[in-house]
Amino acid sequence: MTERRLQVAVIGSGPHEAAALEVGRLLAERGCTVVTGGLDEVMAWALRGAREAGGTTLAILPGESRADATEWADHVVVTGIGHARNLAVAASGDAVIAVGGSWGTLAEIGFAMRLGRPVVVLEGGPAVEGVPRVATPAEAVDQVLAALGR
Amino acid sequence: MTERRLQVAVIGSGPHEAAALEVGRLLAERGCTVVTGGLDEVMAWALRGAREAGGTTLAILPGESRADATEWADHVVVTGIGHARNLAVAASGDAVIAVGGSWGTLAEIGFAMRLGRPVVVLEGGPAVEGVPRVATPAEAVDQVLAALGR
Amino acid sequence: MTERRLQVAVIGSGPHEAAALEVGRLLAERGCTVVTGGLDEVMAWALRGAREAGGTTLAILPGESRADATEWADHVVVTGIGHARNLAVAASGDAVIAVGGSWGTLAEIGFAMRLGRPVVVLEGGPAVEGVPRVATPAEAVDQVLAALGR
Amino acid sequence: MTERRLQVAVIGSGPHEAAALEVGRLLAERGCTVVTGGLDEVMAWALRGAREAGGTTLAILPGESRADATEWADHVVVTGIGHARNLAVAASGDAVIAVGGSWGTLAEIGFAMRLGRPVVVLEGGPAVEGVPRVATPAEAVDQVLAALGR
Repeated sequence: MTERRLQVAVIGSGPHEAAALEVGRLLAERGCTVVTGGLDEVMAWALRGAREAGGTTLAILPGESRADATEWADHVVVTGIGHARNLAVAASGDAVIAVGGSWGTLAEIGFAMRLGRPVVVLEGGPAVEGVPRVATPAEAVDQVLAALGR
Repeated sequence: MTERRLQVAVIGSGPHEAAALEVGRLLAERGCTVVTGGLDEVMAWALRGAREAGGTTLAILPGESRADATEWADHVVVTGIGHARNLAVAASGDAVIAVGGSWGTLAEIGFAMRLGRPVVVLEGGPAVEGVPRVATPAEAVDQVLAALGR
Repeated sequence: MTERRLQVAVIGSGPHEAAALEVGRLLAERGCTVVTGGLDEVMAWALRGAREAGGTTLAILPGESRADATEWADHVVVTGIGHARNLAVAASGDAVIAVGGSWGTLAEIGFAMRLGRPVVVLEGGPAVEGVPRVATPAEAVDQVLAALGR
Repeated sequence: MTERRLQVAVIGSGPHEAAALEVGRLLAERGCTVVTGGLDEVMAWALRGAREAGGTTLAILPGESRADATEWADHVVVTGIGHARNLAVAASGDAVIAVGGSWGTLAEIGFAMRLGRPVVVLEGGPAVEGVPRVATPAEAVDQVLAALGR
């Protein structure tokens, strides 16, 4: 049996294309599978960054159809549970990085912290007391991987 | 057909007994059904405050057994979906009031805002940019009912 | 503290109006709160039967809006989790009665049996090996209440 | 962009080791990713069969910890939603094959049929009117792939 690959969830929304691409790329270069909610914007860009760097990507969709997933998703989980899939996104990351984001992202941060996952928020994402913030994608990736002992 | 009663969700956790009891009581006196996650602390006290004022209470549980509900719950929904029931609690309130609380409460605030429910946080609850804070149970109840046109 | 009222879930779909009304009415006359998925057909008729007999009704909706509920629902839980709310419907009944129904009903029967709830299927509902079938609403109500010691 | 790989969900439980291994192996040989609930028995064997044939495997867990997954899972989704994850398992398959199984499997068959996924039940699995049954793993795989146009 091979050692299991780390999975890191990238959450968020909004026009943070460069940051999301870079977070995805850096995670792939460090050997992590990238997990997102699988739709557009940050969710798609993080998967694209990972895929273009040769990484593996996993999308966890809210709806009932696999066709909703961004083309950058290698593997697709169709949950059918709407916004409650935010729990699955947060829980499926060994750690969680927020890039931008609004209310749905806040819910994911809440769940990730509740479950004890390491979480960092990149500048531009929701300010939440008790959750570390970092200035760059490289710091975000370094910090969550350090928290996981890598 | 009778007009449907308003339902207000009270979310939160921690040792805020007096505030939770008063929020529950005030909501009942204003004719609202009180909805919570149905377990202990704030969830139980808000239902108790409502019940003791002659109101109706509704618990939405995370587990698979109705026996988990506080005795102050009149009606019990057993979701079996763990922390994802936080979405159901937030969504089942025509408005939402936070009394204390931690990460699970943050997830509920995120969902309630995402769904467009009026939300207020009582002092002592999570500080979230863009979510109104109030100092007293009476202000909390007045503010959410005003938002609902009552 | 008052003894908690029994909750019985009525599941199913299709044009079984008379049977659903009667199951709802009989449950209300026996002091049970009636729980359904809260939309149309069997879900609405069972609640109507209960309400018209002076009973209390509880709807557990799949969507994100309370406005989706039938007018016969006294209390409404808005789950936002789509078909996964079938688990909550099955789990929220101390016992479960199926009136008609198709694939979604089959999922509810599976969950109710998995959770150890007493289940009966009224003739016309899905035939499932190991699940008792009865011919009339009265037998359905008698049988599940007997299983609950009433 | 590469064409997306088919995903086939294998559901069921019980001591059907040889059949589950073979279904997993045949699906992998036909280029499909195998999806299961990720725990023991049929869920583990189907993933093992796929992995040993060089295929890719995806586990969708009910709990909150990735550590619950069988070692044969390449990618793991941690849903945290208990039995409601059965909806995600059924929905994440482009088609669904049942190998043995009991009440949880019945719920998955109900959801898969509700969502219009092709479903076949291997002899030994639940008998459900309207769901095709086949005698061998090869027939099961042939039949669902034919339904998907392969």
